[in-house]
Amino acid sequence: MATTYFSKRNLHFLLHEVFKAEELAKYEYFSAHDKETFNLVLDSATYIADTIMHPNLRDVDRNQPELKDGKVTVHPKIREYLKAMGDAGLIGAGFSFDHGGQQLPEMINSAVSFILMAANNGMMYTGLTSGAAHLITSFGSPELSEFYVPNLLAGTWQGTMALTEPQAGSSLSDVTTSATPLPDGSYKISGQKVFISAGDHDAADNIIHLMLARIDGAPKGTKGISLFVVPKFRLDEQGNVVDNDVQSTGVYHKLGQKGVPAMYLTMGSNDNTIGYIVGEPHQGLRYMFQMMNEARIGVGMTAAAIATAAYYSALQYARERPQSRRLNEKNLLDAPQTAIINHPDVRRMLLFQKAVTEGSLSLLLEAARLYDISEVAEGEEKENAFLLLDLLMPVAKSYPSEMGVQSVSQSLQTFGGYGFTEDFPVEQLYRDIRITPIYEGTTGIQAQDLLGRKMTQKGGKGPQLLFAEMSKTIREASTHDELKPYAQQLGAELKRTQEVVESLMPHAMNGDTERYLADATLFLELFGIVVVAWQWLKQSVVAKQAMLTQNPQGDELAFYEGKLHTMKFYFHYEVPKTLGLAVRLKDTEVLTIVTEKELAL
Amino acid sequence: MATTYFSKRNLHFLLHEVFKAEELAKYEYFSAHDKETFNLVLDSATYIADTIMHPNLRDVDRNQPELKDGKVTVHPKIREYLKAMGDAGLIGAGFSFDHGGQQLPEMINSAVSFILMAANNGMMYTGLTSGAAHLITSFGSPELSEFYVPNLLAGTWQGTMALTEPQAGSSLSDVTTSATPLPDGSYKISGQKVFISAGDHDAADNIIHLMLARIDGAPKGTKGISLFVVPKFRLDEQGNVVDNDVQSTGVYHKLGQKGVPAMYLTMGSNDNTIGYIVGEPHQGLRYMFQMMNEARIGVGMTAAAIATAAYYSALQYARERPQSRRLNEKNLLDAPQTAIINHPDVRRMLLFQKAVTEGSLSLLLEAARLYDISEVAEGEEKENAFLLLDLLMPVAKSYPSEMGVQSVSQSLQTFGGYGFTEDFPVEQLYRDIRITPIYEGTTGIQAQDLLGRKMTQKGGKGPQLLFAEMSKTIREASTHDELKPYAQQLGAELKRTQEVVESLMPHAMNGDTERYLADATLFLELFGIVVVAWQWLKQSVVAKQAMLTQNPQGDELAFYEGKLHTMKFYFHYEVPKTLGLAVRLKDTEVLTIVTEKELAL
Repeated sequence: MATTYFSKRNLHFLLHEVFKAEELAKYEYFSAHDKETFNLVLDSATYIADTIMHPNLRDVDRNQPELKDGKVTVHPKIREYLKAMGDAGLIGAGFSFDHGGQQLPEMINSAVSFILMAANNGMMYTGLTSGAAHLITSFGSPELSEFYVPNLLAGTWQGTMALTEPQAGSSLSDVTTSATPLPDGSYKISGQKVFISAGDHDAADNIIHLMLARIDGAPKGTKGISLFVVPKFRLDEQGNVVDNDVQSTGVYHKLGQKGVPAMYLTMGSNDNTIGYIVGEPHQGLRYMFQMMNEARIGVGMTAAAIATAAYYSALQYARERPQSRRLNEKNLLDAPQTAIINHPDVRRMLLFQKAVTEGSLSLLLEAARLYDISEVAEGEEKENAFLLLDLLMPVAKSYPSEMGVQSVSQSLQTFGGYGFTEDFPVEQLYRDIRITPIYEGTTGIQAQDLLGRKMTQKGGKGPQLLFAEMSKTIREASTHDELKPYAQQLGAELKRTQEVVESLMPHAMNGDTERYLADATLFLELFGIVVVAWQWLKQSVVAKQAMLTQNPQGDELAFYEGKLHTMKFYFHYEVPKTLGLAVRLKDTEVLTIVTEKELAL
Repeated sequence: MATTYFSKRNLHFLLHEVFKAEELAKYEYFSAHDKETFNLVLDSATYIADTIMHPNLRDVDRNQPELKDGKVTVHPKIREYLKAMGDAGLIGAGFSFDHGGQQLPEMINSAVSFILMAANNGMMYTGLTSGAAHLITSFGSPELSEFYVPNLLAGTWQGTMALTEPQAGSSLSDVTTSATPLPDGSYKISGQKVFISAGDHDAADNIIHLMLARIDGAPKGTKGISLFVVPKFRLDEQGNVVDNDVQSTGVYHKLGQKGVPAMYLTMGSNDNTIGYIVGEPHQGLRYMFQMMNEARIGVGMTAAAIATAAYYSALQYARERPQSRRLNEKNLLDAPQTAIINHPDVRRMLLFQKAVTEGSLSLLLEAARLYDISEVAEGEEKENAFLLLDLLMPVAKSYPSEMGVQSVSQSLQTFGGYGFTEDFPVEQLYRDIRITPIYEGTTGIQAQDLLGRKMTQKGGKGPQLLFAEMSKTIREASTHDELKPYAQQLGAELKRTQEVVESLMPHAMNGDTERYLADATLFLELFGIVVVAWQWLKQSVVAKQAMLTQNPQGDELAFYEGKLHTMKFYFHYEVPKTLGLAVRLKDTEVLTIVTEKELAL
């Protein structure tokens, strides 16, 4: 078991030195907070992570949920975890004081998620509950909020997002679960949902599904989908707790994240499932998508956290494991073996992991900061933050996920044969992280969202704002001789990205969406590399400033030097990947669109 | 369960149309064979794969070997498998008639491995037995051969390669297992071995370890290591079967390939382990390395096979799974959902898998062909084949493994959420394949072998031979208008590769090995892309010729068109990756070599 699973120093560097989280207190909504209250919350999360989560990393994985006689049993530590999270106020930390929350910024909430998920992502329960409760407080009636939210935020009830159906995964417009109006304003629900995370278990006293369904006679497609609260247990007219006919039909056994049951649920088998509408009819998908940025930050954070835990595990091993001699000292047979961290190839693998994980975390905290501003600011500031967040979101979800998978693979490789065994946690993390490029919109969906919507909406205002932000960082970096070459390189990458977009745009203009988006995933990859390069340059400006003004020594000096070194590594090893991607994206040969002559695949 | 796990049509295309396996019959050693006997062997392997292996893919994974009271129990089907393989003559197929074999070429043997490992790589037992028996017949005394080889080739005894020790993984020069000479010429063995695949189990009546150990007083390093046969059971002086004191200390539980026990073995706990020397003292590592090309072809083949099985599973799913509408028909809500294979992004993922898996298989059969010629030809032909094989081997082991991991990840992604569940075999294949970049020399080790040894040995004759072969393919391809642009592109890639080598060579000349090899893994990646591009161009020349001369129709036409299309995909999507790699490799900034100022990693 690795003793370190995240770097508190790095998290504080990003929160306080790079993104200056405490400046959010200037907004009325966050005005009760300062650096101290933020750190208290992070310490409280770290305590839960250290004492309940991390010690059970393996055990939760090895004892996966089982469905027996219609009941789902999960690891006994889950109940303890939910209670601790509720008691610490961490499930509702981001909620308003009115709803029993702490009015903490998403920046801090997502830093909390990062710590928790790095400790044990198999306990991924409370983010779902927060998300469900947030849908109710945002769009539901006061009665719904009053009844459901306190129990959810206390951790005694579990919330879920019940979207996916067997025939409707990426294509939510094909949802068919039905809702039939009843005289009292509630609805009778019938249908099936699959892959519902935490969709049933014995660690909570009730399960509250936020479920998409179609009211009888509703329009086809996305415009006919409504949102309902569908509890596992409801109160009947006499106020008695009764079963709401949400049957656990099956539990999926999975490659990873085994601690969380993914449920197959059937509603209405006994014609007795009642749902309570959230907001207006036919607005369900719109509501759900308004929560999507928050949910996607959560997935990106989970990926960054898992990869971070794997990195620290690999780093520790590389420092301790002696194997072979340094290449220029090969013939010294009497010399003791050197720690593998001294082999350039191992160091390259470790720097890759550090570059990916710290770059991802930086981007996600940037996204969370924009989320906060888009929620609490006003006028143009609010709108700009929202547009920028919306543009960055597909990257902030996909880059940590896709590159995180590769990063954990390199963590595993660092261990050699031992990495493939259950003796170290990395094989589990390798399994766990693989879901993140699928959750909450696959990478392919994110790519279509980025190129097909976010790059072009509002006349391309999002990219304009982003390029302005990047240019600002480039200007700041250019004032330091050591950073100047990298500032110039980022400038060149920006230009390259713009050229790629210009080469694709005619297809969008011609209405040939299929052609325009055919290589969208490669564009997302290119865009991700450039955006994370920006994050690294941004971090290095702050590190450089600190070195010049604070005269850091010892570990502090090493920390800042490590930042500059990793930035350089990123620019020298990762950024050149844009060359091949740009060539492909500007290429006119079409090879993936089905034509009349069907290809033999 | 996927119904198809490999393409017989593609295997025959490569064996008979591209590499003309039957031409090997012109050599005396293979003269008993022709296309028909080759195909009979392949059919026999397919029968075992279809009836014993593939139906147990999941079951073997779910019931991993357990060690209890010193005994290792494996899945009951393993014994059936070993017997069937022995009865069919497939374990010894490549051995000479003298040793009870069929004198089949490695090309056919490796095609057999491909079929078997695509069916169920959790039954990876017989390749180890062949390898162990081959060491005995190649270097051991006639007595050793006579006693051990028949039982090994019959599948009643299991062979292993016992190299790795807790402190000696990649660094075999640090092996410490000891061998003390006894008066009768045998040795008393003492030490520990780890990760010994099939190192103990109940499906064979005896386990025969080919073990590296150091004779008392032997020189340090690689020059003092000897090779021994160390059986689990031996005959004592009276001819009774006695336990040879090889204790099963532990069984590693692993991420994948769970069907094969990876054993922790202890020799000499009761001072009663006897070993029999193979060949001369202190030549053990040399013997082992002479078998290494064969072993590495085996690992590459396993990777290519696993990725192929995953590809066919994803392909079937993509053809059957309806989801969403085509992008240019998004507003047709009444239209039925289209199969996901019609989405460009899914098609891109599938073409990537096809390009990687068929490119890998082609390269491996090329390597096997060179192996055969290096074994049976004479003079310059033999030497050239050997040099070319030696050069290609690090790529033929690493490309299928590294790209296979990525390919299976794309197979999994093709399934969306279902890929993460145990409902489909792809999650298992994702776990299984991850060992291949580690087995038989990690990718980092392969990279050092390629750049540090194979590129420069014999005055760079290997690269000269390879470039000549590639130029031949380029000339052939240039005669077809459709292929000409790709022929030119490969020519340009060759030039780029040479420039990269020239930029690195000064470090080798200066004796700065550490600097020379610092980015060797990236060179291996670049070299692999170019070599596989050559294989794809080679395949496309054959496909194009067939289309011009044989007037193929229906499935046959589609097969050849698919070859050309996938070649184009490879050149348009994969080959451009060399751009970024070349930039990095020619970069003068050193970032991974430890200097005095230790970095904060």
